Amino acid sequence: MAGNTFGKLFKLTTFGESHGEAIGGIIDGCPAGLELNFDAIQNEMNRRKPGQSEIVTQRKEPDTVEFYSGIFEGKTTGTPIGFVIKNTNQKSKDYSHIKDVYRPSHADYTYEKKYGVRDYRGGGRSSARETACRVVAGAIAKQLLSTIKINAFTSSVGDIFLEKSYQDLDFSNTENNAIRCPDKDTAELMISKIKEIRKEGDTIGGTVTCVLQNVPVGLGEPVFDKLHAELGKAMLSINAVKGFEYGSGFCGARMKGSEHNDLFNDDGSTKTNLSGGIQGGISNGMDVYFRVAFKPVATIIQKQDTLDSSGNIVEMQGKGRHDPCVVPRAIPIVEAMAALVLADYMLLDKVSRL
Amino acid sequence: MAGNTFGKLFKLTTFGESHGEAIGGIIDGCPAGLELNFDAIQNEMNRRKPGQSEIVTQRKEPDTVEFYSGIFEGKTTGTPIGFVIKNTNQKSKDYSHIKDVYRPSHADYTYEKKYGVRDYRGGGRSSARETACRVVAGAIAKQLLSTIKINAFTSSVGDIFLEKSYQDLDFSNTENNAIRCPDKDTAELMISKIKEIRKEGDTIGGTVTCVLQNVPVGLGEPVFDKLHAELGKAMLSINAVKGFEYGSGFCGARMKGSEHNDLFNDDGSTKTNLSGGIQGGISNGMDVYFRVAFKPVATIIQKQDTLDSSGNIVEMQGKGRHDPCVVPRAIPIVEAMAALVLADYMLLDKVSRL
Amino acid sequence: MAGNTFGKLFKLTTFGESHGEAIGGIIDGCPAGLELNFDAIQNEMNRRKPGQSEIVTQRKEPDTVEFYSGIFEGKTTGTPIGFVIKNTNQKSKDYSHIKDVYRPSHADYTYEKKYGVRDYRGGGRSSARETACRVVAGAIAKQLLSTIKINAFTSSVGDIFLEKSYQDLDFSNTENNAIRCPDKDTAELMISKIKEIRKEGDTIGGTVTCVLQNVPVGLGEPVFDKLHAELGKAMLSINAVKGFEYGSGFCGARMKGSEHNDLFNDDGSTKTNLSGGIQGGISNGMDVYFRVAFKPVATIIQKQDTLDSSGNIVEMQGKGRHDPCVVPRAIPIVEAMAALVLADYMLLDKVSRL
Amino acid sequence: MAGNTFGKLFKLTTFGESHGEAIGGIIDGCPAGLELNFDAIQNEMNRRKPGQSEIVTQRKEPDTVEFYSGIFEGKTTGTPIGFVIKNTNQKSKDYSHIKDVYRPSHADYTYEKKYGVRDYRGGGRSSARETACRVVAGAIAKQLLSTIKINAFTSSVGDIFLEKSYQDLDFSNTENNAIRCPDKDTAELMISKIKEIRKEGDTIGGTVTCVLQNVPVGLGEPVFDKLHAELGKAMLSINAVKGFEYGSGFCGARMKGSEHNDLFNDDGSTKTNLSGGIQGGISNGMDVYFRVAFKPVATIIQKQDTLDSSGNIVEMQGKGRHDPCVVPRAIPIVEAMAALVLADYMLLDKVSRL
Repeated sequence: MAGNTFGKLFKLTTFGESHGEAIGGIIDGCPAGLELNFDAIQNEMNRRKPGQSEIVTQRKEPDTVEFYSGIFEGKTTGTPIGFVIKNTNQKSKDYSHIKDVYRPSHADYTYEKKYGVRDYRGGGRSSARETACRVVAGAIAKQLLSTIKINAFTSSVGDIFLEKSYQDLDFSNTENNAIRCPDKDTAELMISKIKEIRKEGDTIGGTVTCVLQNVPVGLGEPVFDKLHAELGKAMLSINAVKGFEYGSGFCGARMKGSEHNDLFNDDGSTKTNLSGGIQGGISNGMDVYFRVAFKPVATIIQKQDTLDSSGNIVEMQGKGRHDPCVVPRAIPIVEAMAALVLADYMLLDKVSRL
Repeated sequence: MAGNTFGKLFKLTTFGESHGEAIGGIIDGCPAGLELNFDAIQNEMNRRKPGQSEIVTQRKEPDTVEFYSGIFEGKTTGTPIGFVIKNTNQKSKDYSHIKDVYRPSHADYTYEKKYGVRDYRGGGRSSARETACRVVAGAIAKQLLSTIKINAFTSSVGDIFLEKSYQDLDFSNTENNAIRCPDKDTAELMISKIKEIRKEGDTIGGTVTCVLQNVPVGLGEPVFDKLHAELGKAMLSINAVKGFEYGSGFCGARMKGSEHNDLFNDDGSTKTNLSGGIQGGISNGMDVYFRVAFKPVATIIQKQDTLDSSGNIVEMQGKGRHDPCVVPRAIPIVEAMAALVLADYMLLDKVSRL
Repeated sequence: MAGNTFGKLFKLTTFGESHGEAIGGIIDGCPAGLELNFDAIQNEMNRRKPGQSEIVTQRKEPDTVEFYSGIFEGKTTGTPIGFVIKNTNQKSKDYSHIKDVYRPSHADYTYEKKYGVRDYRGGGRSSARETACRVVAGAIAKQLLSTIKINAFTSSVGDIFLEKSYQDLDFSNTENNAIRCPDKDTAELMISKIKEIRKEGDTIGGTVTCVLQNVPVGLGEPVFDKLHAELGKAMLSINAVKGFEYGSGFCGARMKGSEHNDLFNDDGSTKTNLSGGIQGGISNGMDVYFRVAFKPVATIIQKQDTLDSSGNIVEMQGKGRHDPCVVPRAIPIVEAMAALVLADYMLLDKVSRL
Repeated sequence: MAGNTFGKLFKLTTFGESHGEAIGGIIDGCPAGLELNFDAIQNEMNRRKPGQSEIVTQRKEPDTVEFYSGIFEGKTTGTPIGFVIKNTNQKSKDYSHIKDVYRPSHADYTYEKKYGVRDYRGGGRSSARETACRVVAGAIAKQLLSTIKINAFTSSVGDIFLEKSYQDLDFSNTENNAIRCPDKDTAELMISKIKEIRKEGDTIGGTVTCVLQNVPVGLGEPVFDKLHAELGKAMLSINAVKGFEYGSGFCGARMKGSEHNDLFNDDGSTKTNLSGGIQGGISNGMDVYFRVAFKPVATIIQKQDTLDSSGNIVEMQGKGRHDPCVVPRAIPIVEAMAALVLADYMLLDKVSRL
């Protein structure tokens, strides 16, 4: 109930603070008999880790996953998969300056008020470091899904938008640039923008679009656990996310029914896909696609007034190595969460009919 | 797991198809000792029911709730509250024309594929009739929350947007017009728009904004069950919803950190509230506000091609009494779901610290 | 969380007090496509209902189930099955004498202390009337299980024990006598005993044995949700149950390993079955059998001292129509709970391996 | 769902096989602000670990717990407590002889059939080594409960029974002997019995009694989650357990209502306590007591026929260092599970009334 578990049948429970000894998790419910590709798992970890490119934080975190259980001779055994990622980069002394200070638009204040105590080092539990565990589990979920293709990419940075429809993109280009935008020209604009912002000591928001292809018909559990409702929750649970829309999204709210309805082909596919591949909370076999809004990172390298624990307004300045834009590193996290949702719903669907 | 339960401690499980004998639900986990105002519950039901005004469906559904348990001498007893709403308006013959046809952008096709069988009458389980049960539970949750103010209103219909900030609105006006927009002039434009659309036999989408005031600091369960993640799931589980954003939302993704950060006052409140009252998934005492996008109703009174169960494309035309715009009737549903989330998190928060 | 839901995938949530308007429940997660035999359901209800024979309470409760949803043209649709059983026999005035009194060894005192309020009429929520809902759900679960045979029977009343091994019994005789013991001679002794006890205004305890045959290998979820652990919980959740043992049970605690081990045949079956068909929490294909202890009914037709809500010791005497021995009517309830556990674990097992 | 999580609000999820790299777990939902006594935790671990005395297995497992998260400056923070216990004693080669053999009355066969793969080393996941994680969590739960006293002890070994009532025992003697029976004379008989059995290469069963004192009135969640139902499940989930009874237990099934009813004192306590401190699933403030039956350990140092994975009956002989009687090492596990149940229900009770 305390909110550290995701999923109903394919379940991930995570633990760990950014500057504790380690973070880690338990994947419970992964079916037995899945042959794991450990390189693929580490590859996902590498996509998320800091220091990959010049537009992300230069912190060094090797992010090596140690699996402790649930795997025997390379295969899952049906028992829980315990894993740990050591925190090798715990520079706790770096954080003494925020011990008694609530950073603006961070979770320092709310954790303190809710729990009465707070591990202030590097954001503690509220740090996005926790998402490394999601990427581990998501990488395993991806292997379980195998035939489903999950592709996320950067669709905007600040006011620079990728104008093309996803159908016109070649997802194999996504990893070719630092911002993970499959359109080279837009990617360059985005990267320039981020460099400019970073020079100002500032940060910038952006959006991620994610496309799920080859999703079988029938995934999703009405009423409350609609496929898109769970995808939405999954995305909104990622640090810095402010919004989620799927299919026509907020634009759909401006349309007429006669424009918005997706007419059928005789094979059950639809001529258009404003529905985003989901009807009544259940996948219909068309592409599922959605968009996620990320706010700008709250830590800026500028002076700001803030509040200390004694109730005084004090001046502080962000230090250390922070991301000027969270979006490129969020791509594998968005994919991981999508994979977790799909894996869970594939298992749930196995029991939906005789 | 089959997705008909919402909440962790304050739990609602619903049942019922639009043209079965009855719909209903069980509220489990409502604390004992709550004195219920039954008029207030029925009032919420009346806000949702069809036939209230000229811009909604003219179906007649009295929507009277019968409570069967969990209440003794007007107070909750801590045992489950079972309730039933009879379907008095079951004109099943009206629906024979869709028995073998999958209506475009409805859930007919996906239910059929997922379950192999389908109650085709009036959408069956996928009908928004199910939301009546949410309103019952939400009305009780509202009474549990008492000091928290929950106000939803129509913020757009098609391209007509309410331009004012919610701070400049008087929520006591919301119920004064058929579209439930607290700004009279905008309301009139919206109503005209809907009438025009209905004349065309068409439908139109819109958005609902919801504001939660006097939310105590500390509600929300990081990591996966962040307050806004659960609010997002709750809203996305409502029929026809395509998107959710809170605080700065999708606009926040275009901003810089220096613009977006909410600086503190010395009482812990913030000068701005782009965060939308939530930091790290936990409420910070500021107003929580969010916006929900509704697509246009899929049933239009125009001829459309569609698919039948034998794989033929056939022409069909919507019949019966349908809403030209779902938004005004969605207002009490949005509020109900928000109340359910808040009630659940208030209970969860009681066990978060010694 | 409030404890009114049983099961993980095949889930039953119940509501209702003994003297409220109705009791009922929601079965969520029953797979779609199950053709229901309604006579079989009603037959199980009839086995549980009062007034069937001279050794049970003579209250009249027709216990007719009304199904409101989840079933279409005789088949389950995969949506929740809502059902209601009206309380036709609400003689509330009968219970004014216990309004301010806590009956000994009843739940009056604990409900009052836990919840602060209490529906005192006929035991309210703590009444065994609630088990009628379990029988409804169990009857559906039985139909889902089809090939598994579930047979419970009375194995003791007071000091009268059925001495035969279950292998030597013909379960088709169970329903041939009022006590539901498949051995005619023992049944007669038990019935005489109960009549004698009833004449004294007293009550008596007993045990029920239940045998599950044709259970497929592989049901059960280690570690915490072992098959026998969940069976145990299911049985202990039935009113008046004081103990549970399976396989060798408490006798097994007196044995040596060399006596207790079940040696294999070459088809994987075992020569003996002290294990009770379960190894490591997972069924092994042998018969699962267990025994459940029921205490004597607390309501006796004799004068007893008791406590009133003002803290005075007062004399009271049980009134009304009560069971002198709960065991015969408990048989269908034990079977229903076993069916619920098995149905749940059959669904869970579908996702345990690729 | 895969059964590796225990509890609803105070939740323990465990992972690990007996001969993997490590075992461990995550405690989610422990309230913030609890000052932990780490010596007390290690002390509980030491009570469970092998090699403590001459009547238990002589394997050496230091069982040192490493906490990775959820604790800051000695106090719980409300975030998940991740912990790991390294398997320092992984002599995997010892187990090659059981690689293709299903040991009688072990879980080898059922795991193989359920999952299709199996970590055969030392029982893998089905090994009682997993219970070390329960003891860690139970030790923390005990600290949360503080005022509740939890005392388990050996009440029988084979046919040697502790005849005294628990009221006549001094629990401070429990740890004074190897069998953990607070009565010195009975303890000596039990120890002699075990030594004799071990000489034969055999094993023996026994029972554990557990007494919970100072339990507040009101713990327990009717209907399905009655306090004793959850205690029963908790105990039945421990390796080798075959039965559970509380209060009068199976003896209660032989009694009359007039003998069994617990009459009240005017302070709400009862003159007798055949109920075992629970009425209607809710604690009544009297001592809660229950008894747990453990079968003899299946691994005996004698030749036995068994089945191999090719379907042949082969002769095998247990090797290695095994417990001749599981009961003395089960004492801290029984206490740990009782503590987990009580901690969970104490939290649940906080939300049961306004």
